[in-house]
Amino acid sequence: MESKKNDGRETCGCSIPEKVNKRLKSGPTIVVVNGIKIGGSEVIIIAGPCAVESLDQLTRTALSVKRNGAKILRGGAFKPRSSPYNFQGLGEEGLKLLREVSNETGLPVVTEVLDTRHIQMVSKYADMLQVGSRNMHNYPLLKEVGMQKKPVLLKRGMMATIEEFLLAAEYILNQGNDQVVLCERGIRTFETSTRNTLDLSAIPMLKSLTHLPVIADPSHGTGINWMVPPMAKAAVAAGADGLIMEVHYNPDEALCDGQQSLTLNDFGKLMNDLRKVAEAVDRNIS
Amino acid sequence: MESKKNDGRETCGCSIPEKVNKRLKSGPTIVVVNGIKIGGSEVIIIAGPCAVESLDQLTRTALSVKRNGAKILRGGAFKPRSSPYNFQGLGEEGLKLLREVSNETGLPVVTEVLDTRHIQMVSKYADMLQVGSRNMHNYPLLKEVGMQKKPVLLKRGMMATIEEFLLAAEYILNQGNDQVVLCERGIRTFETSTRNTLDLSAIPMLKSLTHLPVIADPSHGTGINWMVPPMAKAAVAAGADGLIMEVHYNPDEALCDGQQSLTLNDFGKLMNDLRKVAEAVDRNIS
Amino acid sequence: MESKKNDGRETCGCSIPEKVNKRLKSGPTIVVVNGIKIGGSEVIIIAGPCAVESLDQLTRTALSVKRNGAKILRGGAFKPRSSPYNFQGLGEEGLKLLREVSNETGLPVVTEVLDTRHIQMVSKYADMLQVGSRNMHNYPLLKEVGMQKKPVLLKRGMMATIEEFLLAAEYILNQGNDQVVLCERGIRTFETSTRNTLDLSAIPMLKSLTHLPVIADPSHGTGINWMVPPMAKAAVAAGADGLIMEVHYNPDEALCDGQQSLTLNDFGKLMNDLRKVAEAVDRNIS
Amino acid sequence: MESKKNDGRETCGCSIPEKVNKRLKSGPTIVVVNGIKIGGSEVIIIAGPCAVESLDQLTRTALSVKRNGAKILRGGAFKPRSSPYNFQGLGEEGLKLLREVSNETGLPVVTEVLDTRHIQMVSKYADMLQVGSRNMHNYPLLKEVGMQKKPVLLKRGMMATIEEFLLAAEYILNQGNDQVVLCERGIRTFETSTRNTLDLSAIPMLKSLTHLPVIADPSHGTGINWMVPPMAKAAVAAGADGLIMEVHYNPDEALCDGQQSLTLNDFGKLMNDLRKVAEAVDRNIS
Repeated sequence: MESKKNDGRETCGCSIPEKVNKRLKSGPTIVVVNGIKIGGSEVIIIAGPCAVESLDQLTRTALSVKRNGAKILRGGAFKPRSSPYNFQGLGEEGLKLLREVSNETGLPVVTEVLDTRHIQMVSKYADMLQVGSRNMHNYPLLKEVGMQKKPVLLKRGMMATIEEFLLAAEYILNQGNDQVVLCERGIRTFETSTRNTLDLSAIPMLKSLTHLPVIADPSHGTGINWMVPPMAKAAVAAGADGLIMEVHYNPDEALCDGQQSLTLNDFGKLMNDLRKVAEAVDRNIS
Repeated sequence: MESKKNDGRETCGCSIPEKVNKRLKSGPTIVVVNGIKIGGSEVIIIAGPCAVESLDQLTRTALSVKRNGAKILRGGAFKPRSSPYNFQGLGEEGLKLLREVSNETGLPVVTEVLDTRHIQMVSKYADMLQVGSRNMHNYPLLKEVGMQKKPVLLKRGMMATIEEFLLAAEYILNQGNDQVVLCERGIRTFETSTRNTLDLSAIPMLKSLTHLPVIADPSHGTGINWMVPPMAKAAVAAGADGLIMEVHYNPDEALCDGQQSLTLNDFGKLMNDLRKVAEAVDRNIS
Repeated sequence: MESKKNDGRETCGCSIPEKVNKRLKSGPTIVVVNGIKIGGSEVIIIAGPCAVESLDQLTRTALSVKRNGAKILRGGAFKPRSSPYNFQGLGEEGLKLLREVSNETGLPVVTEVLDTRHIQMVSKYADMLQVGSRNMHNYPLLKEVGMQKKPVLLKRGMMATIEEFLLAAEYILNQGNDQVVLCERGIRTFETSTRNTLDLSAIPMLKSLTHLPVIADPSHGTGINWMVPPMAKAAVAAGADGLIMEVHYNPDEALCDGQQSLTLNDFGKLMNDLRKVAEAVDRNIS
Repeated sequence: MESKKNDGRETCGCSIPEKVNKRLKSGPTIVVVNGIKIGGSEVIIIAGPCAVESLDQLTRTALSVKRNGAKILRGGAFKPRSSPYNFQGLGEEGLKLLREVSNETGLPVVTEVLDTRHIQMVSKYADMLQVGSRNMHNYPLLKEVGMQKKPVLLKRGMMATIEEFLLAAEYILNQGNDQVVLCERGIRTFETSTRNTLDLSAIPMLKSLTHLPVIADPSHGTGINWMVPPMAKAAVAAGADGLIMEVHYNPDEALCDGQQSLTLNDFGKLMNDLRKVAEAVDRNIS
């Protein structure tokens, strides 16, 4: 006898809006970022520094992560920082560096947009627009990225339920843009030994409710570099369609989030391990 | 260049008591339950019903999970239930059934003890004593199991920090019993789509701080049977030394927690998948 | 012997930025909204509907709450709603109604701004700009309201720590605008019987750390209209410098948040009760 | 027009068991502790040290708090401590001191019981049995105190929902003992500036659902002595039937929880303030 399959809708106790709803669409959505397909059998790895710092930094990192199998480059030009006195990113200068390194290496780039007034500018340089955790409830921003012709990486708010996360995605789809990748990146709980609590159960739950691809961010999800490898492997085992991870050639000198960045070497080793886990769950990393 | 390895102590921001502290002991602790070793290279699977209901139920389940590779049988005789009007378990009658089925099948048994007055009785029948999530802060109970010559399965309180969890284990070790297995079983957060939030990051965090084995309970951690397989695989990928899972030959008729129980068939399939994941992370399930 | 007074800084375990820091300024900041002073001995009551719906609705409500002692009128023209299919507010039309009713009644108005592109427009009509809970981490918005010559009502993010809340205020002060009122409006916890958990301990904690005025929002803090009176009284007893509450002449027909709105009658009764509590803690409501 | 009164049952979204249910009993339950009535118009103050340390400490504290209006003395003889290396209480010796000071001063005493094996012994000395936060889910203990002829002070688990809290009380009433006082003492949230988050909304919510008296513990609820007065006043304003507070004649030398203890002087001042707040909400403190 088989377990009765719950349909997710009843399981989560929530009401799933129509455009993101798995039941109301046949088959999964594949999000295509300059030729790279997210949501198929391949587990897509996105890697790069927290913040764009210089051409040299970005080029070295990009070449190294590409050689090890990353398919998309990440890097922040506008950084949402808790304190006004922390490094806020290079702004448009950072976007130009991202475009330049993307052209050189062939890796598409994803970068965060914080302000509705910057969307046109960011869209000029980036291949994929990221809406970060702090902006998951920023509805004007969601509507605006929904009007662009760019794929969107939508991170779960650190305080957002699964239902609110799907409603945020619905804001984007409702404007005509269905190229949305959902990213679990850790929620806030009482536990303080990690920066956030990476909620890996969100991966199977979301995949049961929506046709959109789901990836995980073990760097922000843990906040600690040595915890990234086990949690990255766990995310792939749980069914993630991809991972986004912070990598820096010298974490100790990173202008932001160095404590959660992998070195280039550690990233290379991790990729080998991830290939084995992906195969064990009938996926692959090329 | 390698990441600087954090030592855990600083990472978790907590102070680790001496007897559970990994730094103050050379090598991991292997917990032996009637010959079954937890904490070595093999990932140990504990399976069985939420509650002992009858000889027939327990025997059928035990034989089936054993055939599929489970090494220890679980089953509750004293059940901590939120409502006084719910089934509270068979009590000593349940313990006798556990012993009988253990003797028949050769599977050691683990069962929960709720009350200091029952420890002698439970110890007479069980091979391993479980202290459940609701009793992680029950210090008289911790001291009492620390005085027994039985291995202990200590579950994390649903709102216990990593530091409090380790202090609870310290209570047991401090009485002279170092045969303690720690079990992550889901914490309580704002998210309501799952019963609890299985905090898999607790696995690498605990393993960096203590020499004790660490396992996971994806049944209570999710509360939903179809989520058990992905989360079980994720736990093994994250480095768990074992898993404890609820299995019932007819979940729809289970006297407790049927909605989170795997069928016998589903358990068999999952075991095959788990073997592949275990190998991918250089572990094994025999 | 007196208790040794903790200085707050050590107590909260956090680092308080300089411009909001109570220690680095002599005396409290009084925020003046069109002549109404927040932060002095009077407890200032802000009241009005969740959303501006019509001239009639707003006028009736304004006249009634004014008669009962409210000093500022609230009303949303741009509403941040979890679902794209819910009423999103009347937009500029709503702002015009707010201005009209303000001019008629003499009550200054506070309304929320969601989008950096709307700040000039909202500033044209409103006496005070509200940054809502979902935008507490929206740094471009914080910077932009910091550049206006308008007082700001900054709500605590529903999962923001005290430290993050003060850092968000620092973003505003750092742009030259020190007319900021902090508002505790409920945090997200595991408890589901209320919409949020109104964290009244934030009031004395914030007042020990910063010179800015602190008010509470028992309407969002509980989400249930009959809980507003006891929690409003509790907030005043805990030392709040003011309250913001939702009032509707017919909650059952409100276009948003009717279940947490007081009727005009209930508001009148509550004001009488609040006057007594204010006096009991050496404050007053005129 | 009046707000439609929600009946609580629907509001909390939970199912309230029969014996604690307000709807199924006419009028509130008055709990009588050696002549002191909790649940009537008087707000009852319980005060005393965290732990019983010596006859001198207890006598001085008892005489002082009695003079200032406290009606019941608290003091721990068995202390549940996170670490096995912390002071665990004086045990039966502490109980004898409590009895002695009670007899001298005429103040009834409440003290915590941790272990089912100690209930007879504790009952011999105490006028009221406390089940602490860590034992709210300890069902054997709840059943056992339900079989005693002593009033019970049941503290909310730091991780317990309102529904679970009422179910725990139901365990006691179901054994025939309806003399149960519920105590909100702070829940665990993400916020770390206070020890716990005192959930004052639990007071009106519980009072709408059950006929049992409800009190608050601002000492554990905040963990910081200077925060006790504002939160004590807030609790009374929110409708609490009483307060329990830690008082020590020299907090700096207290064997436990000194940082949250009031001095004798501070307690005296607070009592004067509380009388005014109680009157403002039509209650009294004699």
